[in-house]
Amino acid sequence: MERIVLAADLGGTNLRMAAVNTNGEILYRSKVRTPSSGSRSDVIAAILTAARECMTKVEGDFAFAAFGAAVPAIVNSKEGIILRSPNLPELNGMEFSKVFSEALELPVILENDANSATVGENWLGAAVNIQNFIMVTLGTGVGGGIMVNGELLRGPDGTAGEVGHIAVEPDGHPCGCGANGCLEQYASATAISRTASELIPVFPESSLHSDLDITPLDVYNAGLNGDALSIEVFRRVGRYLGIALGGLINVLNPEAIVIGGGAAAGWDLFIESLEREISYRAFQQPAERVRLRRSVLGDDAGLIGVARLASEAVIGQSRISQVRG
Amino acid sequence: MERIVLAADLGGTNLRMAAVNTNGEILYRSKVRTPSSGSRSDVIAAILTAARECMTKVEGDFAFAAFGAAVPAIVNSKEGIILRSPNLPELNGMEFSKVFSEALELPVILENDANSATVGENWLGAAVNIQNFIMVTLGTGVGGGIMVNGELLRGPDGTAGEVGHIAVEPDGHPCGCGANGCLEQYASATAISRTASELIPVFPESSLHSDLDITPLDVYNAGLNGDALSIEVFRRVGRYLGIALGGLINVLNPEAIVIGGGAAAGWDLFIESLEREISYRAFQQPAERVRLRRSVLGDDAGLIGVARLASEAVIGQSRISQVRG
Repeated sequence: MERIVLAADLGGTNLRMAAVNTNGEILYRSKVRTPSSGSRSDVIAAILTAARECMTKVEGDFAFAAFGAAVPAIVNSKEGIILRSPNLPELNGMEFSKVFSEALELPVILENDANSATVGENWLGAAVNIQNFIMVTLGTGVGGGIMVNGELLRGPDGTAGEVGHIAVEPDGHPCGCGANGCLEQYASATAISRTASELIPVFPESSLHSDLDITPLDVYNAGLNGDALSIEVFRRVGRYLGIALGGLINVLNPEAIVIGGGAAAGWDLFIESLEREISYRAFQQPAERVRLRRSVLGDDAGLIGVARLASEAVIGQSRISQVRG
Repeated sequence: MERIVLAADLGGTNLRMAAVNTNGEILYRSKVRTPSSGSRSDVIAAILTAARECMTKVEGDFAFAAFGAAVPAIVNSKEGIILRSPNLPELNGMEFSKVFSEALELPVILENDANSATVGENWLGAAVNIQNFIMVTLGTGVGGGIMVNGELLRGPDGTAGEVGHIAVEPDGHPCGCGANGCLEQYASATAISRTASELIPVFPESSLHSDLDITPLDVYNAGLNGDALSIEVFRRVGRYLGIALGGLINVLNPEAIVIGGGAAAGWDLFIESLEREISYRAFQQPAERVRLRRSVLGDDAGLIGVARLASEAVIGQSRISQVRG
């Protein structure tokens, strides 16, 4: 009987659940909307329902050895506690691992979603064989993870990697974290919509109109069609990413930076200004060293990464498929 | 016969040389001006003269096992090459270790000065028993070092740790590195003098006058006497340090930040605004975790640190006095 793991990626919008083997192959998967009631018990129920479905429907002679969960929160991984979950505040302070180890009768591995994506990209994605890199996820917010010498850098509180909360305009737009001018306010999907709205008076001939809710996809599609406003929005995304990442390149000297999350879809429209800003701000040698790569695993990065962490924890490193050379 | 090391801290202004034992005790020391001729051979000659003096004058039954040199440059430690030395450009590209291993007939360990200071503070200074911390040195420039899990974070090019080149005002003052608005332009000794000069028109009643070259010490002394301009200068130093370090706290979740270098003498005048900015910008848990500490080793941090690195390299870790518990 093959030992596999159950993996969840809980987002503010969607809950993904999968059965994953030690090669990182997804054997069964489901995706449902994350309950938006604001009730903790609704979220727990949705996770349990998805978990049961996954565990019963996967076909083959499998034994589930652990449950790994990636959550959009600052977590204490060691103790399995969600410390602060800005997009799902009903989970603040929750003893996540305790609840689910009781309910599922499995060991539970809890990790931040961006840290999970970092591990996923390192295992089977854009950073295979790369020991020192930075992962940045451009979603509703901007998340991140840091890998140093092949290990996730968590820090003593497990809060490391919050690349989205580097100041890029010290007196700039107010951030959900309480500060002003964080990268998240200039490079997230949310920021793309806001910046586009702000620029409409400056670009009256733009195909985007202020009377509609502008989505990041609207801005991207308009940009591909040559809309000057949209091109300027993504130029700014690249510039602000470069301000933050240029500094991190000077501090960390990473081999690569992997960019994921939904807004990484705007890659073609921001990569040029990002590269320009990095070569302007970072020292020559580390700037030439660093490879900018787009996420390979996309939406599955967190799921795959936390499956890896869960497999490592209970099945052991030696049995896990290693792509690393 | 006790094995000891020769250690040098080559600065833009002074060259310090010392004989250091494996307890980190300085048995003999010298300090001379760094040659300002701009000639590489003058610098080499000065180092050799100081080295010979140290090796002949130290009293006791000692054998020199290695030469460790801390330099104000981006270095390739593995190959012993100085890559880029902004304050001593005559050393750019120099095969430092090769030259001195030939001349002194000793193994040579080359390291960046701020990285050396980081190791020094970790061994015998402000960060004893601390495995994850950031060192910031406020001198002519702003340097830094990062320790992760008790190891210096060097990166694949050995260029990591350049905390001084994080953008704190993206469109701000031009920096020697070619970018604009780096921390170095707002928190170095040089920046203290410049900011004071810039503020004189705003504070006409200040005791500082624009017709004199204002030194950081002038500003500090005036600040202690209640001079509003000088107090504002150091408030800004604290604020800009906090903008950069607040972001690094979110990214690295360090246990401590050690501040050294000559301008750390202004501690009393900048610490309040630094703490305020950090608690404003960093997430609560890592902000409460991090301890701000002033360098204990002061001017000797680089010397002690590179002595440690040299001892480790040739004498071996087990023989070196460990303060760590």
